Amino acid sequence: MKLKTLIAISAYIVIATTTATSQTQVSRVLSHAPTKTLVERLGYPADTKLLIVHADDLGMAHSINRASIKGLETGLVSSASIMIPCSWLPEIAAYARSHPDADLGLHLTLTSEWGLYRWGPVLGKEQVPSLLDRDGYLYLTETEAAAHIDPKEAEAEIRAQIARARALGIQPTHLDSHMGTLYQNQALFETLFRVAHDNKLLIRVSKEWFATAPFLPSLMGPDDVAVNTIISIEPSVTADGWSKFYGDAIKNLQPGITEMIVHLAYDDEEMKGVTSAHPNWGSEWRQRDFQFVTSEAFRKLLKDNNVKLVTWREVGKLMKKAGQ
Amino acid sequence: MKLKTLIAISAYIVIATTTATSQTQVSRVLSHAPTKTLVERLGYPADTKLLIVHADDLGMAHSINRASIKGLETGLVSSASIMIPCSWLPEIAAYARSHPDADLGLHLTLTSEWGLYRWGPVLGKEQVPSLLDRDGYLYLTETEAAAHIDPKEAEAEIRAQIARARALGIQPTHLDSHMGTLYQNQALFETLFRVAHDNKLLIRVSKEWFATAPFLPSLMGPDDVAVNTIISIEPSVTADGWSKFYGDAIKNLQPGITEMIVHLAYDDEEMKGVTSAHPNWGSEWRQRDFQFVTSEAFRKLLKDNNVKLVTWREVGKLMKKAGQ
Repeated sequence: MKLKTLIAISAYIVIATTTATSQTQVSRVLSHAPTKTLVERLGYPADTKLLIVHADDLGMAHSINRASIKGLETGLVSSASIMIPCSWLPEIAAYARSHPDADLGLHLTLTSEWGLYRWGPVLGKEQVPSLLDRDGYLYLTETEAAAHIDPKEAEAEIRAQIARARALGIQPTHLDSHMGTLYQNQALFETLFRVAHDNKLLIRVSKEWFATAPFLPSLMGPDDVAVNTIISIEPSVTADGWSKFYGDAIKNLQPGITEMIVHLAYDDEEMKGVTSAHPNWGSEWRQRDFQFVTSEAFRKLLKDNNVKLVTWREVGKLMKKAGQ
Repeated sequence: MKLKTLIAISAYIVIATTTATSQTQVSRVLSHAPTKTLVERLGYPADTKLLIVHADDLGMAHSINRASIKGLETGLVSSASIMIPCSWLPEIAAYARSHPDADLGLHLTLTSEWGLYRWGPVLGKEQVPSLLDRDGYLYLTETEAAAHIDPKEAEAEIRAQIARARALGIQPTHLDSHMGTLYQNQALFETLFRVAHDNKLLIRVSKEWFATAPFLPSLMGPDDVAVNTIISIEPSVTADGWSKFYGDAIKNLQPGITEMIVHLAYDDEEMKGVTSAHPNWGSEWRQRDFQFVTSEAFRKLLKDNNVKLVTWREVGKLMKKAGQ
C-alpha cells in the first residue's frame, strides 16, 4: 500500500463537515477502553511503542513469497497480507496451512498494476464488469479503479476473495487494501467495513486518515482499531538514504501502535520482469527493503529504541475477532 | 505438449474399427494434392526434410517468455504457441504486436499443472464449472481434465481464448493443446476441429496419431495438414544424452514436414519455483532444451542433414488459413 495513496485519499473522498456525531465516534474509537489504553490491554505499560512490521503483496510473485517468508522467519517481520487473485497464491496458501501461527491477512486486490504481468478478479468477469479494464484485467491504478468500480461489485469480489482464502486453508487475521483502492472514497470504505464486520476481521486503518476522511470514525465499530500512524518508505528514497529513513522513523515512534509497511522481494529476473514497465516500487527497491528489515541493524534499532513488535492476531484476539 | 500424452491417446479414445469411409478420408488427407506433395507446394523438392521447431508454453512464466523469445530470435526456433489464461500473457502479447512476422499460435489451455503456481479459465467460473478442480483452478492433469470436462464448456473456453488473443493484438497462425488435453478423446478432438475450422486455423496434428485415433482423418478438412511425426525429448533423458537424442532425431528425419516440440526456459529462481512440485519438465531440463536448440551445434546439425526450417504461417498461407 502506497503512503502517497494514503495521503492523497482526500482527493477522492466527499469531504463532509465534521458533525457532532462523528466527533463522538472519534472520541469513542480513540479511547475505546475507559480505564485502560489498547496498549495496556495488550499487556504493556501505556507508554510502550508497539510496531507491526507488515509485508504487503504476498502471492503476487515467487520472488515476493520467498523474500517475505524469509522476513517472517527472521522474526523481524511480524505480519503480512496476501493477494488472492494472483497465480502464486497456492505457494503462500501452502505456507499458511503449514504455519498456522503466521500472522497472515488479506491484501484485498482490485488493481493489477504491472504492464506485462497481470491478473483478473476471483469472480467471473460477467459478475463484476465494472472491475475490469478494456484488456479484461483489474485496472492498472487505484484511481482508475475507484473511478469505474461499482461498490456492489467490489463487495461481491472482496467477499469472494475472503471465501477463496478460507477455502484454501488461510485463516486471515486482518484485511487491508492493495494500492489503497478501497480507501479511495466513502462508498468503498463503507463496503470494506461492512465486509470486515460480517467476517469479524480487523482492517488496516490509521488515525492519520481521519482528517481527510472525517466519516471514517463513524464507520468503525467498538471492536475496530486504528493505528497511530503508518510508516512506508517512498520509492524516491535512494539506496544510501535507507538506513536514515528507517532510523528516523523508529526513533520518532510514539507510544501506541504503529504499522510499518514493507515490500519484500529479490532483485531477480522474475521481479525485474514484473516491475520492468514501472519506474517505482521496483525490484532493486524491494530487495533493499528486504535487506534492511531482515538485518541485524534493524533488530538493534528496534532494541535500542525499546520498540516491541506486535501482530494483528494479538490485536484481533483482544478485540474478539475471527482467525485467532 | 507431452509426447507421452500423444502416445497414450489411445487410452482415452473410443477405438473404432477402421471403416471404408475413414480409409478414404486417410487417403484424401495424406495425398491432398493429386499432382504435387505438400512439400512441393511449399516450393521445395519432394524429398526435402522440413522441420517446424516449435516452442511451447509461452505466456506461462517470465523465464519461458525470455528464453523462447531468444530462441525465436536465433532463427533456430521457427514457431511457438501462447497460453492465454496465464499472467505473463501481456508480455508475450506485447512481443507479438511488435513482431507481427513471428510465427505465434495458441497453446489452448485447459490444465494448470504446477502445484504452487496456478491459473483458471478465461471465462467466468460460473460459465465453465466442469473445467475447474476443487480449488477453483483448471485441472492439474490432462487425464483429470478430460474425465471432467463438458465439451460444450471446453468449446466456449477455447473460443474465448482465441477471442482474447485477438483482442490483445495476437494474430494466431495455428492452434495446439497444452498437455494434449484436447487430444484426449473424440468429443474433445471434434470440439477442437470445429473451433479451428470456424477460425480458419491449422491445428497441430500428427499422422502418427491416426492409428490410435482412427476417426481423426474424418475430422480433417481438405485444408488441414498433418505432420509426419512429432519429436519431443522425454524428461527421462539425462543431461549427457541430449545431443544424442536430437542428433539421432534429426539424422532420421524423413522427407515431408516434422514438428519438433521444445520447452525453453532458464533454470532461474522463478522457474525452479514453478516446477518445484513436479519432478519432470523441470527448470534444469528446460534450460538444457534452450541451450541445445539455440546452439551452433544444432544449427550445424540441421545444415549437415539438409533440414529446412518452416513455419506454421507458411503452411497456413498455402492452405488459405487466417492469421497470415
